[in-house]
Amino acid sequence: MLADKPKRVNMENGLFNYLSLTSEEKTLIDELNIIKCYNKGTILLREGDNVDKCYFVIKGCIRTYYLNNGDEITAEFYTESNPLSPFCLRNKKPSSFNVACVEESLLCVTTPKVEAIIFRKFPHFESLYRMLVEEVLVNTHISFAQFKNASPEQRYENMIVNRPDLVKRAPLSQIASYLGIKPESLSRLRKRVNNKLQMV
Amino acid sequence: MLADKPKRVNMENGLFNYLSLTSEEKTLIDELNIIKCYNKGTILLREGDNVDKCYFVIKGCIRTYYLNNGDEITAEFYTESNPLSPFCLRNKKPSSFNVACVEESLLCVTTPKVEAIIFRKFPHFESLYRMLVEEVLVNTHISFAQFKNASPEQRYENMIVNRPDLVKRAPLSQIASYLGIKPESLSRLRKRVNNKLQMV
Repeated sequence: MLADKPKRVNMENGLFNYLSLTSEEKTLIDELNIIKCYNKGTILLREGDNVDKCYFVIKGCIRTYYLNNGDEITAEFYTESNPLSPFCLRNKKPSSFNVACVEESLLCVTTPKVEAIIFRKFPHFESLYRMLVEEVLVNTHISFAQFKNASPEQRYENMIVNRPDLVKRAPLSQIASYLGIKPESLSRLRKRVNNKLQMV
Repeated sequence: MLADKPKRVNMENGLFNYLSLTSEEKTLIDELNIIKCYNKGTILLREGDNVDKCYFVIKGCIRTYYLNNGDEITAEFYTESNPLSPFCLRNKKPSSFNVACVEESLLCVTTPKVEAIIFRKFPHFESLYRMLVEEVLVNTHISFAQFKNASPEQRYENMIVNRPDLVKRAPLSQIASYLGIKPESLSRLRKRVNNKLQMV
């Protein structure tokens, strides 16, 4: 499923339910036509393609993944308020990963040019965005540090504690590669961890 | 070694060698007294302390680490142009990790209040900073994804390729916990990887 036909978004029922905006801000966002809704399974970007867009998840879940000897490895899940700005956009290299919708997703899809227009007109958006990216960066560093010295069981436990929604939103095979665990091992240890957490 | 006595920085020989700034920008930075030089080994922040500062590495190397059953686990190394904004600063919780200087380090040390003053006076600093944080975030996601499904040998190889300077800057024990490998295993596989890379 390709990304070229997003659904038209009724703004009054879409973005504006999730963000509190002034009427001037609403008008600009409407004019720029940057809010898109994609079906579950839509591929937004393919490995090797040129990159020209940044994504910001308003509602839904998208993931980055790549192929390793034919196996799909999920690199990261992006859910509500997570920004995904492929670095290949800045170094002008083809994308090193794929981006796909794990569920139906309402996204803010921009380019560096469009971002510049928005930030020039409403500088406080840049401040908000900067603080948000900083927060995501720090959380990523913490998850990474926890991951490094954790057993597969601890990794799954950490995910349940830090991002409990992912278990319900993504299929087991995607979560397994995301945690660096084989699907059959995840299937086994999941029962143990769930029993343990229910007992706490 | 505590962090309360940074060396006085001669700005003409310090920061201004690394950044190109207008005289107005130089004056503000001088007035705010935010550029500090710390000796190797200085502890900038201790686990459990209240956090009130953000760090930006102009020159040098600092690391975050925590204790796990008495063992020091290095979470991340921050080198030239890396920002470290402890997330505990925003959620007002005590720090969950320590921060220390791996080598003598020239740092820009700010608080959210000081950042607000700088960004209000020179909004383009906020844009630059935002783009920088985005770049670091994307690189962190890539390293994290590579790490998850890599063998210890591949992890060391990836580090040599992506951050070759770290091997020369940080001691083996810190690099081992950073890679989630026991020091004795790292010592063995390091020889194999170095031989392999020399043959390429």
